[in-house]
Amino acid sequence: MGSTRARIAVDAMGGDFAPVEIVLGSLRAQAELDADILLVGKPDQIQEALKHHSVPPGLEIVPTEDMVEMHEEPLTAIRRKPNASINVAMDLVRQGRADAVVSAGHSGAAMAAALLRLGRLPGIDRPAIGAVLPTMTAKPVLILDVGANVDCRPKFLEQFAVMGSVYSKYVLGIPEPKVGLLNIGEESSKGNDLAVRAHQMLQENSRIAFIGNAEGRDVLSGDFDVVVCDGFVGNVLLKFAEAVGSVMLQIVREELPQGLNGKLGTAMLKPNLRRIKQRMDHAEHGGALLLGVAGICIISHGSSQAPSIFNAIRMAKEAVDHGVLGRIRAQYESPELAVADGQSSLSRGGEQPESVE
Amino acid sequence: MGSTRARIAVDAMGGDFAPVEIVLGSLRAQAELDADILLVGKPDQIQEALKHHSVPPGLEIVPTEDMVEMHEEPLTAIRRKPNASINVAMDLVRQGRADAVVSAGHSGAAMAAALLRLGRLPGIDRPAIGAVLPTMTAKPVLILDVGANVDCRPKFLEQFAVMGSVYSKYVLGIPEPKVGLLNIGEESSKGNDLAVRAHQMLQENSRIAFIGNAEGRDVLSGDFDVVVCDGFVGNVLLKFAEAVGSVMLQIVREELPQGLNGKLGTAMLKPNLRRIKQRMDHAEHGGALLLGVAGICIISHGSSQAPSIFNAIRMAKEAVDHGVLGRIRAQYESPELAVADGQSSLSRGGEQPESVE
Repeated sequence: MGSTRARIAVDAMGGDFAPVEIVLGSLRAQAELDADILLVGKPDQIQEALKHHSVPPGLEIVPTEDMVEMHEEPLTAIRRKPNASINVAMDLVRQGRADAVVSAGHSGAAMAAALLRLGRLPGIDRPAIGAVLPTMTAKPVLILDVGANVDCRPKFLEQFAVMGSVYSKYVLGIPEPKVGLLNIGEESSKGNDLAVRAHQMLQENSRIAFIGNAEGRDVLSGDFDVVVCDGFVGNVLLKFAEAVGSVMLQIVREELPQGLNGKLGTAMLKPNLRRIKQRMDHAEHGGALLLGVAGICIISHGSSQAPSIFNAIRMAKEAVDHGVLGRIRAQYESPELAVADGQSSLSRGGEQPESVE
Repeated sequence: MGSTRARIAVDAMGGDFAPVEIVLGSLRAQAELDADILLVGKPDQIQEALKHHSVPPGLEIVPTEDMVEMHEEPLTAIRRKPNASINVAMDLVRQGRADAVVSAGHSGAAMAAALLRLGRLPGIDRPAIGAVLPTMTAKPVLILDVGANVDCRPKFLEQFAVMGSVYSKYVLGIPEPKVGLLNIGEESSKGNDLAVRAHQMLQENSRIAFIGNAEGRDVLSGDFDVVVCDGFVGNVLLKFAEAVGSVMLQIVREELPQGLNGKLGTAMLKPNLRRIKQRMDHAEHGGALLLGVAGICIISHGSSQAPSIFNAIRMAKEAVDHGVLGRIRAQYESPELAVADGQSSLSRGGEQPESVE
């Protein structure tokens, strides 16, 4: 879109397979997507990972020797190590040298760095982590918060709904995203104190299309495009979803090849089984997104390898190209602007750095 | 076990397929299990459902014309209709005429009836609903609470852990049940306020084998035998788990028969696919159990048909035979008695009705 190439700062030192897999994913992204990559980290290690590849002009190394280790307490580490790779990556966005950050490192550290270096968007009390899951239908569902805020107030959930609707509409391409509140029953009186009060606020918010409570069984039904919840429930749900997939696949793997017919049939079905595994595989999704800070941040799984990093960079680029930041900001600058009105003609707008709080 | 046959009061009017499927499940349970059944409900409808069957001496009809309808507000209905089938079933336990209640009716109504008619066990602040789920291993996991208490205090979770350990040990046959606290990280400092405080209480309770936090991904790993959480998170998780199973099965159904090899292979694998469906199917599990009231209560899914009712009655009978009530009571009468010590020699003890509170 447009003439400006998205510039993605990638934390080359974050993740179980850093820097090699991070570098390989970045190389592929630079080649296949219309984006420039800034690889942030130890230059000798990054050079080593790059040594059998020709380095294209759109891929730049931003050298820094420091990094946050997995065992460190994130907030302390972020404060004590101003030159840690994740801090430097955030600074690139703050300075306007990059449009987005991708990291597979400690998610708490990425969140802390984003908050301290970029700050929150005006109108947002708490940033949220959003995760995109497949549903029964062709449309995915965006769930947020999946871990940034364990204790939430109703207005946080309302803000999650607004930010989620913007992302769903402009990046996932859903014209009028249907918002649900994760709850234990359909009636507005159901749920814990947070849910009951959030239900009312969501219902009164004319900028989003709130269609009611989403029970556990509705999350993947495709009836909802955005589901909001506190970060405790959301995190439990997301990790449970990932594990259930493995349990199911294991049952299929155990039972399918039983008996002679089973062995023959399973052999014939190999390509089909591979497709099933792909559809159930979460690695395809790239990462979670941190919404509500003054920059696009994609947080990838610690176990990410090159394909996940590639997908995370694609997510970041799409959020940049569709001006997600500017559109969220506009929601709080022009309160009448509904996410679902289809009249918005905002420019990208997300590139301007916020001052640190 | 022993010479006393368990006597199960079944709410014949509760559930989407009441009374026919409830009656059929009860007939089978009476025939196959060593248990007497008291069918509570409208006698003409129960007789109609029984008319092509010979009624064995161990199956009795306890007539009542009233019932709680699905659309009614449960607590109000339970109070206004003393002769509703679920109330009469609870009364049978209170009067010592039955050992347990099985109902597929409104779960809120069953809970209200149990609380008002049977009361809580001494030492228990809030009864919990427990659900048994299959894991990656041969052992199941008991999750509680899955819906009775949306807002919990730390000591409630501690009581859930004690009750769950008793059930896991004596009914599910796990010698020293490993208890986990559902949380969003492994460290004791992780989680919301409830989780942090509950973690400490669980750790200090010497009567249970608390092994730490269980993340969403650990729930079905088999590493934990009992997982405690508040009823909001538990309910979301349980309903999500049921739905994920359907999503997975649908993906398998769509992808497996693709292409000519796919069609042939799928045909050869029919019996194996049936076994996979069975292992993933929650109907096999019969129902959830209400722990902490002065009686054994199994709450079945509203959509239960005869096989689920049969399994629910079997669950009820096993809880009765293993003296679950008496053993929970003993935990609070003799504080030194550990669930995991293996020294307990309690009698059934669960049959004595409590006075209503």
